[in-house]
Amino acid sequence: MTFEIKERDAAGRLCRFTTRHGAVITPNLLPVINPNKMMITPKEMKQRFGVDILITNSYIINKNPELRKHALMSGVHKLIDFHGTIMTDSGTFQSYIYGDINVDPLEIVRFQRDIGSDIGTILDIFGTPGQTKEESQQGTTETIRRAKESIQEKGEMLLACPVQGSVYPELREECARQLSSLNADFFPIGGVVPLMENQRYTDLVRCILAAKRGLDPSKPVHLFGAGHPLIFSLAVALGCDFFDSSAYAKYAQDGRMIFLWGTEKFDDLVELPCCCPVCSTYTISELRQLDAKDRTLQLALHNLYVSYAELRTIRTAIKGGWLWELVEQRAGANPFLFEALQVLREQNHLVWLEQFEPASKKTALFYTGPQTMYRPTVFRYHMRLCSRFDPLFNTTMVFPEGTKPYSMFYQRQMQQILTKKHVNFVVDSTIGPVPFELDEMYPLAQSVFPMSIDKETREITQHIMQRFLKTGKVIHWKEDMKLKQEKSKRSPFDFDLRRVSAVADMQFGRGASDALLNGRITIIKSKRTGKIRNILCDGVHVLSMRAEDGFFTLKLEGGRRLHNRLNYPLLRVVITNDAVPFVKEGKSVFSKFVSECDPSLRPFDECLVVDRDDVFLAIGRTQLTRDEMLSFRHGIAVKTRESLK
Amino acid sequence: MTFEIKERDAAGRLCRFTTRHGAVITPNLLPVINPNKMMITPKEMKQRFGVDILITNSYIINKNPELRKHALMSGVHKLIDFHGTIMTDSGTFQSYIYGDINVDPLEIVRFQRDIGSDIGTILDIFGTPGQTKEESQQGTTETIRRAKESIQEKGEMLLACPVQGSVYPELREECARQLSSLNADFFPIGGVVPLMENQRYTDLVRCILAAKRGLDPSKPVHLFGAGHPLIFSLAVALGCDFFDSSAYAKYAQDGRMIFLWGTEKFDDLVELPCCCPVCSTYTISELRQLDAKDRTLQLALHNLYVSYAELRTIRTAIKGGWLWELVEQRAGANPFLFEALQVLREQNHLVWLEQFEPASKKTALFYTGPQTMYRPTVFRYHMRLCSRFDPLFNTTMVFPEGTKPYSMFYQRQMQQILTKKHVNFVVDSTIGPVPFELDEMYPLAQSVFPMSIDKETREITQHIMQRFLKTGKVIHWKEDMKLKQEKSKRSPFDFDLRRVSAVADMQFGRGASDALLNGRITIIKSKRTGKIRNILCDGVHVLSMRAEDGFFTLKLEGGRRLHNRLNYPLLRVVITNDAVPFVKEGKSVFSKFVSECDPSLRPFDECLVVDRDDVFLAIGRTQLTRDEMLSFRHGIAVKTRESLK
Repeated sequence: MTFEIKERDAAGRLCRFTTRHGAVITPNLLPVINPNKMMITPKEMKQRFGVDILITNSYIINKNPELRKHALMSGVHKLIDFHGTIMTDSGTFQSYIYGDINVDPLEIVRFQRDIGSDIGTILDIFGTPGQTKEESQQGTTETIRRAKESIQEKGEMLLACPVQGSVYPELREECARQLSSLNADFFPIGGVVPLMENQRYTDLVRCILAAKRGLDPSKPVHLFGAGHPLIFSLAVALGCDFFDSSAYAKYAQDGRMIFLWGTEKFDDLVELPCCCPVCSTYTISELRQLDAKDRTLQLALHNLYVSYAELRTIRTAIKGGWLWELVEQRAGANPFLFEALQVLREQNHLVWLEQFEPASKKTALFYTGPQTMYRPTVFRYHMRLCSRFDPLFNTTMVFPEGTKPYSMFYQRQMQQILTKKHVNFVVDSTIGPVPFELDEMYPLAQSVFPMSIDKETREITQHIMQRFLKTGKVIHWKEDMKLKQEKSKRSPFDFDLRRVSAVADMQFGRGASDALLNGRITIIKSKRTGKIRNILCDGVHVLSMRAEDGFFTLKLEGGRRLHNRLNYPLLRVVITNDAVPFVKEGKSVFSKFVSECDPSLRPFDECLVVDRDDVFLAIGRTQLTRDEMLSFRHGIAVKTRESLK
Repeated sequence: MTFEIKERDAAGRLCRFTTRHGAVITPNLLPVINPNKMMITPKEMKQRFGVDILITNSYIINKNPELRKHALMSGVHKLIDFHGTIMTDSGTFQSYIYGDINVDPLEIVRFQRDIGSDIGTILDIFGTPGQTKEESQQGTTETIRRAKESIQEKGEMLLACPVQGSVYPELREECARQLSSLNADFFPIGGVVPLMENQRYTDLVRCILAAKRGLDPSKPVHLFGAGHPLIFSLAVALGCDFFDSSAYAKYAQDGRMIFLWGTEKFDDLVELPCCCPVCSTYTISELRQLDAKDRTLQLALHNLYVSYAELRTIRTAIKGGWLWELVEQRAGANPFLFEALQVLREQNHLVWLEQFEPASKKTALFYTGPQTMYRPTVFRYHMRLCSRFDPLFNTTMVFPEGTKPYSMFYQRQMQQILTKKHVNFVVDSTIGPVPFELDEMYPLAQSVFPMSIDKETREITQHIMQRFLKTGKVIHWKEDMKLKQEKSKRSPFDFDLRRVSAVADMQFGRGASDALLNGRITIIKSKRTGKIRNILCDGVHVLSMRAEDGFFTLKLEGGRRLHNRLNYPLLRVVITNDAVPFVKEGKSVFSKFVSECDPSLRPFDECLVVDRDDVFLAIGRTQLTRDEMLSFRHGIAVKTRESLK
């Protein structure tokens, strides 16, 4: 097995996952194949939807003598005629539905191994939401015990060990932690079907968050039984990689159609509110005229078309950096989902989520309501502003109210007014206080806020402004007179220098500007845009400013200066000795060679690559969080840009 | 031409529109056909998308000698080989793009008539957003003058007269009013393309609202140049019936794909985030390998698939009563659209929108954020509560805080607690104060609110509660002791009677309960659900309570009592004498026979049908607003339920 992060957004990730039967991309959906009755064959699924991973049930195969024989003889891939990755379930869900199912936990694991399942699942104890904490604890203890035993039997098969713990986050987290310490390969989050059936999305989110906290970040996470695309984007944003759907078939049998806003009964519809091939080929009356079996098939196909399109949308959003925007849009369709989003506002979750959030993005931040103010990016901006921004000049002025939004559009107007004056402003904006030195940094210049905003957002802004004023010791200058005095004192270069200095501190931490700019500074601007491009210190190139996000790219000399000035482990990614020669050649750092990393580094931050003795080797850009670097066996941890020969 | 409302939600409507070339359903989209170069032929559009109305350009046809000759000889339908409804544009947009186009306003109307266009368009003056008010005023004056002259020339052709007036709502409204007084058939809202191109949706919304205020409600309204489905739902909710799209082709030529959240460049995509036949048939790499012309065609098809599916979704939402929910969801995709929604909070717009809002719905109201509290339904509930709810008993008690939401789920729990006590409660809920007597009425029982709500919503609620307390003279009873005293004094029948009385006043207005319940009351309950079903007064059936929305259905005796008690014109729909015999036979009232109507009646309200001398004839349910009844020539105004023989 390999599992490797290729793209990321929020705590979501787009990974490449390989098994003996090929590679699949995540997030992805495993359609559930009932070996007894296939509404759509795996072959057709491959053709129509490009399905290259699915799930079937070893318990059902094992119980049916004929299927059992066939599977043991020819393997599960031949049994269902599918040659991609097959995951098998163990009968746990059946035990939840039917009670005792008389299956031996080890036997079913051996059976899955023997029929050639790519990913088998242990027979875990399904924790229901109604359980007491004691009952649930007993269940997770037994699940962990079975996981330990089952792992001995897995052979070449990958083994999935579901995280249980009912609605008790502390049990979920502990269960996840213990399972992660074993040699398991794949982590479903189990026991959540009853939560989803009752739209208890708030509880679902707490379960996912707790499990993710405890889990090894380098292993795939599967939200077991999640088949409705309504919740895919949120689950992905929290770090789920796989879903499985029997919903496509069950809903179709029940005459129900899946939409991104929920589910509609086919009989209640007068038109088909969808553009999938089924809904575009048939009119609703044509569909009504089909015989029942045919119609059910068409509804099932519709359900899968919609589900797979949502996964493509989610993957597009991850690549584009607008996964949170998508999550918030989807939440607008369902008040329970909308409510579940609010769990993410809680401080501990926000802190957890912030570590995954990319340092910057190329896409603008879009405001969708008060929830936007609780996005990890905004939270990080506020935190860094209060802790890192150094108001070097106590002439900073709070811009009068009434001009709240701060977006690329708004910013353009502001710039025309302000750059001419070369005064240090703090704009009291929707996103919070924006010192003018920072106004080209993501997400400030790259955000779109409406002019009129709700009270909740206004209050958050005020709160942050007060906090900032306290930290920053800002003097309010409101009189025009003083503005004019100020104007006469400053030169364009002064302001540029202040911008460079402030951005350096915001990006690399306090003290960074002193290290980087200690000498005679030359600022080279783009002739076309007039924006800062390169910064030289004593004639040596130390920094370049990126046009897209207003962040710096480190040059080797800049890295050296930061390394001299900032104490270990700040900005460092430490690599093992065997990787040193490769990095010196300019090769990227693979995660398996990382031995330590500054926990304050975020994905896509500029970093210093050092050896175990903190000898400076290279500068580059991180691709992973610290914890990911330390767990992943595959993939790039740091893209090296320049290295010392 | 006929134009008839079939279904409705918000200020949107699902209509049947017929011309000489057949019937089309609205809201609908007219794809723009360039007669010089058809990327997709009308024939293929009919086959693929069921297109039965489209728009082409008479200016282009007229300028090309060959097309002109062909069109004059065989008609525009043969020219483009399409036998549905054809609308033609006049060259106004070309004059906006290219300046003076040297077309005679009357000649182009005659030309459209002569080539057999079903809907021709006058050569109006395109009002640009940059115009001064005077310039714009001159333009509308000229547009109105041309409309007057052009109407003389229209013959059998329907004539579209665009509403202009730049960004000046008062000019738009006045222009609309003047055009409506003429014998025009179809009203585009013109001059809005520059607003949409710059995402000035706030201005767009103001333009639409102003035009709609001034327009004859019985004529189709077309948002000229609107081809991106992102804004369809909002425009429909404000009363637009038609859109036209050259965007599908223009965007495709530009390598851009339309999505419900905006537009993406094909070259930037790595996957196709859509389920349409194009995106489900091709992978993105297959699409890349097509030659440029083929790929452009596929992108255009995708753009149309997405656009038509959105129209089906909107029509489904109208039928299902969740158009506002859809509008709010879509607004989550774009901050400018989100901002435009906030225009609807302004008191004058809210009052205007409220008149169209159905009296009740079968679908639950879904909360999506602070904007939900400004929906016309919620506004109406607050207004009626303060003006109509009669706190008959000054023992009403404010339920303790901390139990804010009010939804069908929450309600069930409350009911268990409260019905046993038979005390009159007011729940201080998210939607505002809810007297327990009203708790089964739409939207109270039929709404879903999240548990945690934003500050803005909380403040609206508090504000309404204060207003209600002032109006209702409610006594706060917080002590358990008093609760117990209260309990002992009341019987279940007392509470039922209070419920019946309160609902009657809320639904029909103050005094209704006195009229309806003046006598010996019998309340018949459903044996299955225990809910109130029928109310008899002195042994005669006066009211039935509908399970779905908690509103009353009037019986003939109930109607008679209300007619006796409430002064003209309250609850009345007045019909002309020639319709009286039909209504006496129990036939429905067609709008052309309505001569007056109580302006406080809303669509789907129970009403009294009377003749011009206010003689009571029948009870029924309205289907239209007063203004619609007085303008529409086709369709049902009141569905009669029972009539006096």
